[in-house]
Amino acid sequence: MPRTIKLTLAYDGTHYAGWQFQRNQPSLQESLERVLARITGESIRVTASGRTDAGVHALGQVVSFRTECPLPVGKLHSALNAWLPKDMLALSVQDAPDGFHAIRAARRKRYRYVLHDGPRPDIFRRHYCWHYYGRLDAEAMHRAAQPLAGRHDFRSFQSLGSVRTSTVRTVWAISVERGRGGEADFIHVEVEADGFLYNMVRAIVGTLLEVGRGVRDETWPQQALAARDRTAAGPTAPAQGLFLLRVEYDD
Amino acid sequence: MPRTIKLTLAYDGTHYAGWQFQRNQPSLQESLERVLARITGESIRVTASGRTDAGVHALGQVVSFRTECPLPVGKLHSALNAWLPKDMLALSVQDAPDGFHAIRAARRKRYRYVLHDGPRPDIFRRHYCWHYYGRLDAEAMHRAAQPLAGRHDFRSFQSLGSVRTSTVRTVWAISVERGRGGEADFIHVEVEADGFLYNMVRAIVGTLLEVGRGVRDETWPQQALAARDRTAAGPTAPAQGLFLLRVEYDD
Repeated sequence: MPRTIKLTLAYDGTHYAGWQFQRNQPSLQESLERVLARITGESIRVTASGRTDAGVHALGQVVSFRTECPLPVGKLHSALNAWLPKDMLALSVQDAPDGFHAIRAARRKRYRYVLHDGPRPDIFRRHYCWHYYGRLDAEAMHRAAQPLAGRHDFRSFQSLGSVRTSTVRTVWAISVERGRGGEADFIHVEVEADGFLYNMVRAIVGTLLEVGRGVRDETWPQQALAARDRTAAGPTAPAQGLFLLRVEYDD
Repeated sequence: MPRTIKLTLAYDGTHYAGWQFQRNQPSLQESLERVLARITGESIRVTASGRTDAGVHALGQVVSFRTECPLPVGKLHSALNAWLPKDMLALSVQDAPDGFHAIRAARRKRYRYVLHDGPRPDIFRRHYCWHYYGRLDAEAMHRAAQPLAGRHDFRSFQSLGSVRTSTVRTVWAISVERGRGGEADFIHVEVEADGFLYNMVRAIVGTLLEVGRGVRDETWPQQALAARDRTAAGPTAPAQGLFLLRVEYDD
């Protein structure tokens, strides 16, 4: 009897051309589907809550798929981690209600972007943050980000060429926070929303960075939002600092 | 006029076959020499304080070389970081006394080995630690390690097939310490000595791990040392957890 599985997954996106299957390029989707075929003997098509770009990571991507495989979820979980490459990790495997669909059922997503403003790049974390030479004012960035919270047209923070029908989204929370102790040179920008436009977090980070380095004042992100014009905002931050943290669903 | 340069270097050894030049395989030495050739126009041979193995990292490797290049050290430093690959970083560049030699002048070296005993592997640090499934008793490991401090024959902790003339070394300090806060699942084993036998730190870590997981009692490392026999000690821990922290020289 077919069942629907909800899989929560962490991955290091460094060596992938992105989530989505692409001919002749390694994708996370293909890696996962290959392992599922090995475990179940079926040709399974998976659906992720969203497609992450090349170099983008996940600490809690959610994936749904249907299978005839009768394995209990615990066994399926172990089998996945036994076969997945070392840059992918199954965090949880659950039976989901029939018809559960990781994109359509998603209610909120949260992303984190990691900035590093230590005096030198950290070569061991070069794939997991964006290094800026010079000190950033994280508190100014946090204040400047607050007007982006709420329901707005985020067109200014969408990469050109996107074809979303609506550019209105609700940002439930946005924060900029410097780490403590050994993490004091790392800054986390976190954004939680009901959905994201293409490159939205990276465009917001590129805009807030201009405030943090003192080139723009704290009202600028709000003005950029109001302009509803991509050229009014800052550049798109590079992929490697971005992590999909979690996806929330209705029960 | 020829001068001698002392270069301190950090690197991520993941993508290298080790420090030493090898035909048809990427080495750190070759990477560095290629960049120096580009900067100085000379064919320069560098000497490192010690050859790190494939997958071993450095936070403070020291390298010496002679050059006719008249660039001030500050410029040389910037040029190195402009041209070195992103997994290598020049930390400091100094003029050294004529005849300074990074191997012969070394008085002490300190290595760190990073163990991880969280419930799941950390995919983002998989190249920088050794993950153990199960909890390790770091305090027992620390106590068990203390008899290794001092001047001893460390033959039991040297990989078979080595050809050192003497296997006596002085360990100045050895410690096992669990991290705090967000690092509470990581354990640092640090060893400082006047010199190291081949794979000595990794053999010590493999031995202490047996104590940490409760398979051997705390007196076992000391017994293994006294046996002067490699088979009396534990297995060699894998390369990716090992970092050369620093090298000390007489002034």
